[in-house]
Amino acid sequence: MEVLKKKILSQGTVIGSEILKVDSFLNHQIDVKLLNEIGLEFKKRFANQEITKILTVEASGIGIACIVAQYFNNVPVVFAKKHEATTLDAGVYEAEVFSFTKNKNYKIKTSKKYINKEDKILIIDDFLANGNAALGLISISRQAGADVVGVGIVIEKGFQKGRICIEKEGVKVESLAIIKSLKGNEVLFE
Amino acid sequence: MEVLKKKILSQGTVIGSEILKVDSFLNHQIDVKLLNEIGLEFKKRFANQEITKILTVEASGIGIACIVAQYFNNVPVVFAKKHEATTLDAGVYEAEVFSFTKNKNYKIKTSKKYINKEDKILIIDDFLANGNAALGLISISRQAGADVVGVGIVIEKGFQKGRICIEKEGVKVESLAIIKSLKGNEVLFE
Repeated sequence: MEVLKKKILSQGTVIGSEILKVDSFLNHQIDVKLLNEIGLEFKKRFANQEITKILTVEASGIGIACIVAQYFNNVPVVFAKKHEATTLDAGVYEAEVFSFTKNKNYKIKTSKKYINKEDKILIIDDFLANGNAALGLISISRQAGADVVGVGIVIEKGFQKGRICIEKEGVKVESLAIIKSLKGNEVLFE
Repeated sequence: MEVLKKKILSQGTVIGSEILKVDSFLNHQIDVKLLNEIGLEFKKRFANQEITKILTVEASGIGIACIVAQYFNNVPVVFAKKHEATTLDAGVYEAEVFSFTKNKNYKIKTSKKYINKEDKILIIDDFLANGNAALGLISISRQAGADVVGVGIVIEKGFQKGRICIEKEGVKVESLAIIKSLKGNEVLFE
């Protein structure tokens, strides 16, 4: 997706050889016009697929998922919660996720009320690196007996193992920008 | 806003006399069509106001803010972060917020890069109770020298002191549903 790649090149910041910061348009400040272009692109990538729900994880995924949902007949968005929430029901599906950025395990949880076996789920997230968050969301969907139609990612770190792990689960991955390397402070796309 | 009030009455759950759960359409599962109606209503409430940025706080505020931004010429959304983020810059504005739901203090932070003194800010959040999150966002805006045009709230607990505290700061509050009481498991609107 050319407009996204241009944005990454002009506004992204590379830290070390593994971290790409896109705080200025994706996960701290959000460019809503760009999110609409992203929504349109995901609609093309998952054309003719029946999708009943979009699943993501807080926090950065939520804004993307809400705008993307507009391109899929305004299907409901459900976001898995990362932190113990006192207002969350006892009945939850949960999965353990390891965050490399924060170097710790955490649980993601979704109320059983909002995913069910009739659902055809599109998982949406900002980044794909080692695939832990996406695998957690696939696990939650399958605990509910739902079908996972695919995983839609804005930026994939192609040099990490996320895609392989998700495809091993038999799930299609569509990423709008795939990064081959961040070495030498330079963003190279595949 | 009638459609919102109906949704609260049909899907909200009252817990005790102070907590209203709206997990099924606002802060766990999200009704994107309703968010669009909310965006349109905020546009009416803040008509003819110059707004350059929408500020909210993670996590539930993000989806609302992104959809609302579409009704304000796709201005950028900035969300304050609640948790220590390793990828956040050293240069931040921060405010201390007390959460009654979680009974503890936490800091909210926004990178100095994304709010500046030219900004006219609309603060958006899902709930207004004691006003702590909104006051924190007003403080962050003012640290940056920005103008706060107003605070737009989806559901206000009118029996708590949030509105008074914000109006004391000289900031206009617009809430789309104001709850007078949650006593006896019943939602009464003002």
